[in-house]
Amino acid sequence: MRLYIGLVHYPVYNKKNEIIASAITTLDLHDIARLARTYDLKKFFVITPLDDQQELAGRVIKHWTRGYGSRYNRDRKEAIKLVAVVPSLERAVDDVIQAEGDAPLLIATDASRQEDRSISFERARAVIRQELPVFLLFGTAWGLDKAFMTMADHVLEPISGRSEYNHLSVRTAAAIILDRLVGRY
Amino acid sequence: MRLYIGLVHYPVYNKKNEIIASAITTLDLHDIARLARTYDLKKFFVITPLDDQQELAGRVIKHWTRGYGSRYNRDRKEAIKLVAVVPSLERAVDDVIQAEGDAPLLIATDASRQEDRSISFERARAVIRQELPVFLLFGTAWGLDKAFMTMADHVLEPISGRSEYNHLSVRTAAAIILDRLVGRY
Repeated sequence: MRLYIGLVHYPVYNKKNEIIASAITTLDLHDIARLARTYDLKKFFVITPLDDQQELAGRVIKHWTRGYGSRYNRDRKEAIKLVAVVPSLERAVDDVIQAEGDAPLLIATDASRQEDRSISFERARAVIRQELPVFLLFGTAWGLDKAFMTMADHVLEPISGRSEYNHLSVRTAAAIILDRLVGRY
Repeated sequence: MRLYIGLVHYPVYNKKNEIIASAITTLDLHDIARLARTYDLKKFFVITPLDDQQELAGRVIKHWTRGYGSRYNRDRKEAIKLVAVVPSLERAVDDVIQAEGDAPLLIATDASRQEDRSISFERARAVIRQELPVFLLFGTAWGLDKAFMTMADHVLEPISGRSEYNHLSVRTAAAIILDRLVGRY
């Protein structure tokens, strides 16, 4: 499996539908890193162009991989060491190409209905099983900028629960999506 | 569907394997309430015997269902109104009996391997589809007290990802479990 995940902090929407760079939620780093470790992903990219936010993420990573946290909780270290902080999607894609020798298939996620370029869970699952490199992108705040999403090869179909409600946190949405795509049950 | 969920803050283990009452993480309330709304659950019980913690949870609920938050974010209100704060499992079960007329099947969750009383995702899914009332229990901190778990009728099989790593947050574990049990895909 050659699966990568990215958490995008810019460009995303705020509640007023304006494009912003969102602040890092450290809990997202912990939760998604643990998902990445559980589902055997190659790397979890935290994408933010803001220097202070890169620094914040860097401090969290250092604490848990080399500082006190690495001795306090080794399980967390195992997860956090999969995290890489990068300024842009381009940079993350370059890193994947460096590691894999191939450009990854870029799949964006979106909570709202998609018409074109949509890929089903079943189809995405099949692509991942073919051992092609795949890079799955999640937006923070009110979701990924639609213009930014045109860079993706596909947009994953939204999670349908048992209602029309589609306001999950990015942490829990990533959990459900990874389990649907690569869970073994 | 007559599915209920409970987040237990006592009795749970701390890192040293001692029984404690854990503090409420307000993000758990938000994330799990949104899952409850997405998967059409009847109620999400936050179980804590501590007065100050009940008060904290009560304030969060009030803010989002009646205060400023209810006007700022109506989607959040839709989710948070499913939350009920109760001092004990017994009290939560009484509330379910009151609402359903029947005692619910109690299914505890545990990240570690279970030998006896284990129920598979497939079997649990079938029970829920039979329209029997089911009450799913999640532990906070380092998990539910084993003695407490004997009160449950079954223990759900652990989530297996693609590795032996089993250290997900309760938020993301609840997401995966609910999607496996009642997700439509």
